[in-house]
This record gives sequence, C-alpha cells and structure tokens, in this order.
Amino acid sequence: MVNAAPTRCDIVGTMKILLIGQGHVGTAALTSLAPHHEVIVASRSTEPSVDITDAGSVRALFEAVGEVDAVVVTVGKVPFAPLEELGVEAFASAFAGKVASQIEVVRTGLPFVRDGGSFTLTSGVLAREPIRTGAAASLANGALEAYVLAAAPEMPRGVRLNIVSPSVLESSPGHHAAFAGFPPVSDEAVGHAYRRAVEGIQTGRTHTVD
Amino acid sequence: MVNAAPTRCDIVGTMKILLIGQGHVGTAALTSLAPHHEVIVASRSTEPSVDITDAGSVRALFEAVGEVDAVVVTVGKVPFAPLEELGVEAFASAFAGKVASQIEVVRTGLPFVRDGGSFTLTSGVLAREPIRTGAAASLANGALEAYVLAAAPEMPRGVRLNIVSPSVLESSPGHHAAFAGFPPVSDEAVGHAYRRAVEGIQTGRTHTVD
Repeated sequence: MVNAAPTRCDIVGTMKILLIGQGHVGTAALTSLAPHHEVIVASRSTEPSVDITDAGSVRALFEAVGEVDAVVVTVGKVPFAPLEELGVEAFASAFAGKVASQIEVVRTGLPFVRDGGSFTLTSGVLAREPIRTGAAASLANGALEAYVLAAAPEMPRGVRLNIVSPSVLESSPGHHAAFAGFPPVSDEAVGHAYRRAVEGIQTGRTHTVD
Repeated sequence: MVNAAPTRCDIVGTMKILLIGQGHVGTAALTSLAPHHEVIVASRSTEPSVDITDAGSVRALFEAVGEVDAVVVTVGKVPFAPLEELGVEAFASAFAGKVASQIEVVRTGLPFVRDGGSFTLTSGVLAREPIRTGAAASLANGALEAYVLAAAPEMPRGVRLNIVSPSVLESSPGHHAAFAGFPPVSDEAVGHAYRRAVEGIQTGRTHTVD
C-alpha cells in the first residue's frame, strides 16, 4: 500500500475544537474548520463568553467546554499610535492584551487538551513588516512568534503549539488604507493556515499568510 | 575623487557614546568602541549607576551624562525555567526586565541623543533558536527585535535604532552547556556588530552574530 495516498480518515478524524474569537480572522478560521470538525466558538459576546485577559474567565470557559482536541485563539488587543505617543503603558497594554492573554489560554487550557492535541495562536504581519503607528503591535506579534518557537518543544503529551500570522484580510477593508502596499489576503488563505496548524504535524511554527 | 576610498575622518568622527552594561556583551562592545570613541560606561555598579527597570534612574543617568551621539544598551534580565514553571508572572518579569526597560531607555534618552545619532539595543539568539527553559527569554528577544523593526522608521531627527542579537559568547563558558550545539561567538565578532550598528547607516536592523 506504499503507493496509496492516505485518505482523510487515515489522517485525522473529526476534532472537537474550541475557537476563541469572532472577528474577521476568527470567522475565516471557522469557515475553514467547521465543515470538518465540531467547532465551539467563544468570544465576549457568546454564551459561554470569554475575556482572555481575565484568567478566571478563561478557566470558566474551559470548565464549561471540557476536553478538546484543539484550541484556536484569534483575539488580542493592542494600541496603535504614533511612536512618540506610545509610552510604557501602551507597550504594557499590548503585552497584556495580546501576548500574556494568549499565553494564559495555553497555560490554563493545557489540562483540557487531549494528548496529541494542539494550540494555534494568532499574531500578524506587523511582526515582519512595520506600518506607521504599529510599534506596539509589532512588539506583541514578535513576542508571540518567538514564544511559540521556544515553548512548542517543551509542550507535554505531544501537544503542538503553532501560530498563524496573517497579513491584512480582504474582508477587512477598513484596515486597507493603513496597510497600503500590503496585498490583502483572502479569508480562504487564512482559513487554510489554521487548518494546516490544527490538522498538520508541525509544531513551533509561524504560519505566515502574505 | 570618485575612486578614492573614504577615510575614517570622512565617515564618522569620534562620538560620545553612553554604554549601559558591563557584562560579557557590554565588555565586548566596549573593547570594540573604546579605541575610536569617547565611551561612558554605566551599570548598577558604576558612578553614576543605573537600573534600567527604574525610569527615574535612567533619567538621572542621562541628566548626568548630557548630550550623546549614541546609546548602547547591553543589559536585560529574564527568568529561565522549564515551560511548565513559567507562569504569567515570569513572562511579565521578562517583559519588564528586558523589553520595557530597553524601550524606556530609548524614550527617556531620545532628547539627549543628537540629530543623526543612534540607539543600539541587545536581544539574543533565543529569538531565532530555542533552548530548554528559554521560552520567556525567547519572547523578550522576539519582542525587542520586532519593536526595533517597527519603531526605527518613526524615530525623529534621523536618529537610528538597531539591535544586536548575539549567540552565546566564547567569553561566557558558564553558558556553553545550556547552549550545546550553538557555536560560541568571539567577543571580537560581537564587538564588530555594535560598531556596525553605531557607525553604520542602517536602521531598524537586527544585527545577528551566530
């Protein structure tokens, strides 16, 4: 059977996936994953709701959802402002809102993720290309990508850890002016990156979408 | 004179440089810069002393030193521990000790740096290759490198901003076991990177030394 291509059933069955975030990126991930898996979506406006900057809220979400095969986080808040207006509080806010919060989902969620499961976080193109007013966002994205690189090999029980780093989405036209010269990426391309992270075998990887 | 190579005097005169840090990396930078420039060294144990996690201390240092052409920061403290022991406080400590602190030197020091001057920060190889117990250090280094990439183009008055990212130093044998398989780099190579950052024309660059 060496020459037979593996079928889907050989590769990965239906997973139970917790997807945190209902923005443009979260929706792209959901559209891609939902036809193949059981996806539970959580955000500030769902029931159960979640605020990833609140450790208690994250814990309550996992207790409500129970064991899962994969966790996908597509949320994170960072301030945008001209460099001269980005004070120490702004960088701290970017760290708390996007970096510490996503890391805390990994730490809190780990006992709820089955052996061989996965976490997929979300950074963004500003880790590799700057835009005006984006220094705090770049910092947060760079921090997350380096964390994933380094933390993945230390994850227990074969649990994988990856991150998707998309450029500006076609479906977010409100951001296109700020990202002039960045070719907007399709929701489909972004969705593929989340499927590759969730269903693939890679770990510690930044899946860029440019 | 098109074919005449520029002489040193055409390129850059003697600069007044504030170098923060007297560890192995700081010493490598000093050895490289001191023959060519006036270098003022500051650390916790010098007079004036400085603790870069204390904004008041950083401000007092700049007020004591006055105007400079370049600032080089080679200090930053991060916790090392197995991933499962790195809690939210450890990541916050890495952010405060190495990331926010170096950024604060840039913010506080900017008015003291002459037009066309420069800042050179310090990250490290863990931004691009992980070691066991190094997830918080990787996060801090990745954050700093992305910050430099993004903040440099927004710096005023032609002030440049770069970062040196060295691998483990030959002169730090105590760290060689933790960095098995990382070829130790010479102090001379590390020194060259700081000179390139200080005397060069690049900005927003991570100068890796591997």
